[in-house]
Amino acid sequence: MIATQYKGNKTFSVIEKEIEAPVQGDVRIKVAYSGVCGTDVHIYHGMMDKRVAMPQTIGHEMSGVIDAVGSGVKGFKEGDKVVVRPLDDRKAKPSDKGFNHICEELNFIGIDSPGSMQQYWNVPAFTLHKLKANTDLKLAALIEPLSVATHDVRLSGLQVGETAVVLGGGPIGLLVAMVAKEVGAQVIISEVNPTRIEKAKSMGLEAVSPIDVDLVEYVHSKTEGRLADVVFEVAGVQPTLNIMTEVAGIRGRIVMVAIHGQPKPVNLFKFFWKELKLIGARVYEKEDYEKSIALITANESPFEDMITDVQPLSNIQQVFENIDKNPDGMKVLMDCQL
Amino acid sequence: MIATQYKGNKTFSVIEKEIEAPVQGDVRIKVAYSGVCGTDVHIYHGMMDKRVAMPQTIGHEMSGVIDAVGSGVKGFKEGDKVVVRPLDDRKAKPSDKGFNHICEELNFIGIDSPGSMQQYWNVPAFTLHKLKANTDLKLAALIEPLSVATHDVRLSGLQVGETAVVLGGGPIGLLVAMVAKEVGAQVIISEVNPTRIEKAKSMGLEAVSPIDVDLVEYVHSKTEGRLADVVFEVAGVQPTLNIMTEVAGIRGRIVMVAIHGQPKPVNLFKFFWKELKLIGARVYEKEDYEKSIALITANESPFEDMITDVQPLSNIQQVFENIDKNPDGMKVLMDCQL
Repeated sequence: MIATQYKGNKTFSVIEKEIEAPVQGDVRIKVAYSGVCGTDVHIYHGMMDKRVAMPQTIGHEMSGVIDAVGSGVKGFKEGDKVVVRPLDDRKAKPSDKGFNHICEELNFIGIDSPGSMQQYWNVPAFTLHKLKANTDLKLAALIEPLSVATHDVRLSGLQVGETAVVLGGGPIGLLVAMVAKEVGAQVIISEVNPTRIEKAKSMGLEAVSPIDVDLVEYVHSKTEGRLADVVFEVAGVQPTLNIMTEVAGIRGRIVMVAIHGQPKPVNLFKFFWKELKLIGARVYEKEDYEKSIALITANESPFEDMITDVQPLSNIQQVFENIDKNPDGMKVLMDCQL
Repeated sequence: MIATQYKGNKTFSVIEKEIEAPVQGDVRIKVAYSGVCGTDVHIYHGMMDKRVAMPQTIGHEMSGVIDAVGSGVKGFKEGDKVVVRPLDDRKAKPSDKGFNHICEELNFIGIDSPGSMQQYWNVPAFTLHKLKANTDLKLAALIEPLSVATHDVRLSGLQVGETAVVLGGGPIGLLVAMVAKEVGAQVIISEVNPTRIEKAKSMGLEAVSPIDVDLVEYVHSKTEGRLADVVFEVAGVQPTLNIMTEVAGIRGRIVMVAIHGQPKPVNLFKFFWKELKLIGARVYEKEDYEKSIALITANESPFEDMITDVQPLSNIQQVFENIDKNPDGMKVLMDCQL
């Protein structure tokens, strides 16, 4: 079989290796598609070299079909379409309080252990979610990033009739916007890249540039002065941190989706004055996957438009190089069914 | 009657003025005690001169007895012991979503309009809470700051058996600690002033200095590694902002009690990583006053120890000058029953 390996220094290799039998409790998946996550790009840039044991097969956004079942595995059989929730929480402790998806010794499969950017992938059966037989496996590769969005929206407590402002119209921002819209909220995306604004609009989403409009005034006018009930900070830059506390109305909830590597200035006075809440959100829980699978199965949102490129797995080096050159792109999938 | 007036430039005057009849909907209160709040000290320092219309009678932490009742007032009569919830929310709008205690056009009585540092005080009857006839009026002057604490603790969702860390052992910090303890939580105060640490200990509270102990290790050892379920940031300085995200455990809730005038660096990565929540909290709602009145009436916490000085109203200038000289003091009351 073909596997890819990140070797450091912005370099992937494509190697030939033996297919392995699944050990007890594991299944072997014939990977269909493996999406490229922002985290994978981060790894490619060498930002996570301390954490990633090189050479390493990365990748955690995927869809596939069970190819072999290890002993002791119940509820799954060869031919089942599945996705993996790539969280190995077997080292969770009581001090994690049952929040095992973010347990202190979490093993994130595809970062801390081998991932899906290969033809066959052996994973513990407890990470699997089964898909319906007629599920589109390209769309199914979006279930992992979509689950980040369903988790974010669930933790926000967004209700029908509320207004959500999404700061940042990249892949996660658009998925958050789609989930928020499906809840029944008014959704406004703020994004500076004109191509991404057009992309969002073409998907039926409302998107404005905070360069062209005064975002706070705009949201004020769209909410009879209530401003945003929920703000999703997805962009991860200082200007969005500055505006998140302005665009949120009284008792607004701000979900911190972006990863800010360094401490950054936050207007804490506004948290006090308007009784704002900041809600940290990381990965997903089982119910978020179930919600995402239901959304992908129903296929009533423009998920297909998220996929802007599909490339053979063996093109991995070129795929990552192109992502760096193309800030307009959304989700790139690698086809692992060579 | 005697009234005091803030005139700017760290100066109060004590004046003689006519007692006024209460207008429709108002009552006249014979003020018993008026406590000095940190906000009053802030006003004295000239920090709120843009907001305070000088000369102004300030003060909003008080207890008293109804002296006269205006027309149309129901449910109150001369001789009733009362406290005032000093929030005039008559300009609340639909965009305030019913959170009238922090409505956009809130009039904070004692800052935006005349306050309680006078012998007689006319206020709208809707601001009143009635006390039992046997209530100690000195303790009752603590109901307003105690309601800040009951509001903070209620918004935190603190549960019996959880651990709360209070960053800052001043008056509000101690009140928060007392309310948190009454909930049934393990409470640890972090404070750098040795006199305040001893004060807290003398009141039966646990208090440590983050200079003497590694606070995170200390809380870790007291919680079997869970760390704090709730953190109250009361101190309002950068070191407490730095430690709040460290001492909070997975899904910990951090209540922002302090007023940070400027944007300050916050470790947003920890919010993401541990799915922390930051909860802004400002003043109080009706139910917080009711809870505080119940606590003061039961008098099972060491509230009396909070009152470190009682001075006649006419000493107001000296009272504020002394507060500046004495960082160890807790709550100073002015006796308005000259």
